[in-house]
Amino acid sequence: MAPILLDNITPERSEYIEHEEVHVKNPHLHSMEEDILYHFNLSTKTHNLPEMFGDIKFVCTGGSANRMKAFAEFMQKELGLDGENGVEDICAGTDRYSMYKTGPVLSISHGMGVPSISIMLHELIKLLHHARCRDVVLIRIGTSGGIGLEPGTVVITDTAVDSFFQPHFEQVVLGKVIVRSTELDKSLAQELLQCGREILNLCTVIGKTMCTYDFYEGQGRLDGALCSFSTEEKLEYLRRAKEAGVTNIEMESTVFAAMCRVCGLKAAVVCVTLLDRFKGDQITASHELLQEYQLRPQYLVSHFIKKRLQLL
Amino acid sequence: MAPILLDNITPERSEYIEHEEVHVKNPHLHSMEEDILYHFNLSTKTHNLPEMFGDIKFVCTGGSANRMKAFAEFMQKELGLDGENGVEDICAGTDRYSMYKTGPVLSISHGMGVPSISIMLHELIKLLHHARCRDVVLIRIGTSGGIGLEPGTVVITDTAVDSFFQPHFEQVVLGKVIVRSTELDKSLAQELLQCGREILNLCTVIGKTMCTYDFYEGQGRLDGALCSFSTEEKLEYLRRAKEAGVTNIEMESTVFAAMCRVCGLKAAVVCVTLLDRFKGDQITASHELLQEYQLRPQYLVSHFIKKRLQLL
Repeated sequence: MAPILLDNITPERSEYIEHEEVHVKNPHLHSMEEDILYHFNLSTKTHNLPEMFGDIKFVCTGGSANRMKAFAEFMQKELGLDGENGVEDICAGTDRYSMYKTGPVLSISHGMGVPSISIMLHELIKLLHHARCRDVVLIRIGTSGGIGLEPGTVVITDTAVDSFFQPHFEQVVLGKVIVRSTELDKSLAQELLQCGREILNLCTVIGKTMCTYDFYEGQGRLDGALCSFSTEEKLEYLRRAKEAGVTNIEMESTVFAAMCRVCGLKAAVVCVTLLDRFKGDQITASHELLQEYQLRPQYLVSHFIKKRLQLL
Repeated sequence: MAPILLDNITPERSEYIEHEEVHVKNPHLHSMEEDILYHFNLSTKTHNLPEMFGDIKFVCTGGSANRMKAFAEFMQKELGLDGENGVEDICAGTDRYSMYKTGPVLSISHGMGVPSISIMLHELIKLLHHARCRDVVLIRIGTSGGIGLEPGTVVITDTAVDSFFQPHFEQVVLGKVIVRSTELDKSLAQELLQCGREILNLCTVIGKTMCTYDFYEGQGRLDGALCSFSTEEKLEYLRRAKEAGVTNIEMESTVFAAMCRVCGLKAAVVCVTLLDRFKGDQITASHELLQEYQLRPQYLVSHFIKKRLQLL
């Protein structure tokens, strides 16, 4: 068993308040002549990152490339920007991630699971740093399984927790386990909750979000290729999750919360629930209904951005 | 700390030899009226899976959707199949994965990281089971970082190991950690190695492949947004990995090996190295050279498939 260490990279709060810049926590970066953001197909040598991205104030990210393109198109309209030529994928040279910029809003896909979003976050945080962005807010817009909630409910994450309901993210560094906190910005979560309340017919709640490394066994589903537990054992686990304050389950929130926190970035997670896991495992809602559900976090975040930009 | 248990799902070797069918290890599946393979946008009710997939003998999978499309097009040509209309994405209704069928070969993307490939494998194994496929071989065709190898070397994985160099995959099930073996099929690995040797100018080796949950800190890179270690500490970790028999590092092999093993599926991992991690962290080779490197595992696996089909 590897030793478990407390994280030695901590956010320097005073520094953060003073500059409001996006910080990298890596002393080696400054001595690099070029920084290739490999999975974005961008580089500090071939692209003028401050010119391309310097005015970014909001980064919105979600698993699906199609969904993030749709969100960018939606924001373009909502912000009254010229949309004649549609939106263009800045990462078109690679199919790892898709990225769109509409005014001060960057929309970027992150794929599925902790490792996939973690690669994206490393390169995104470096991009924001190289571009000398200030006062940036990061919001993950996602889908999730609900714990005792009506499908279609929008959950704003208070704290991301792991499969043991702990507010921890474990990162292996050179064969040692480092534990990082997964607390998110409380005032940002409250601000988003208020936005949800201002939208007619949108059921918005705040709660803990459990992040797992697997969609089937890892979330107690009975319908994977592998399953070694009973329906009753599954329900017992979900009951324990609920008692611990978990309102929904997804697959990216812990590393998202942990990395943003270390880098002094204000961050939030806004996910819609596609089903109530107490009632089933399969996602059986119609394509149209699922599409409508997935728009709900987008409406909420668009409302938040417009309020922040004083467009409402 | 959660208890660590030995896996209670083990491959039933005698059963495997007798049937050579694709097994699911889930007693609940048989009582389900419909099985929605959500991330493939396929279902047992809306699709005739035996008709669509019953003749599959080879499944090839890799991270990038574009690369798997290119591989499908390549196999179509190599197998002398009618390619007038190109290849069509069977999962076109979703952007989570892309899937192409060319004769007995299924090409499918898996995204990046353990959780992403694990969702794909759950649904793929159920698909092969529902389609009543027999004698299926699964091969991951990927990219990796090399440990003391010339860039462009093709590595066939002997055993997948975790960040502690152990042949283990840890799966959390209902809050308990289950440990699964990550050994791969030895004779399949040798057969692939022989195929590599038959291709002119292809440097092919066999060795352990380390699978990590992160591309930057998790692989000892100095160029992420976060880094708390020195160049010397990084090199020391890589030296220890090399001493443990690790030849390359990627992000999917442990769960791939573990799940295929539990389900009695013969599986292999064939990855090209894009750089030598002793010499750097950034992927600086030209786009053209990287493209050429990525074709190497494809040539090797195409050669293997053609030999198996007695087309050579």
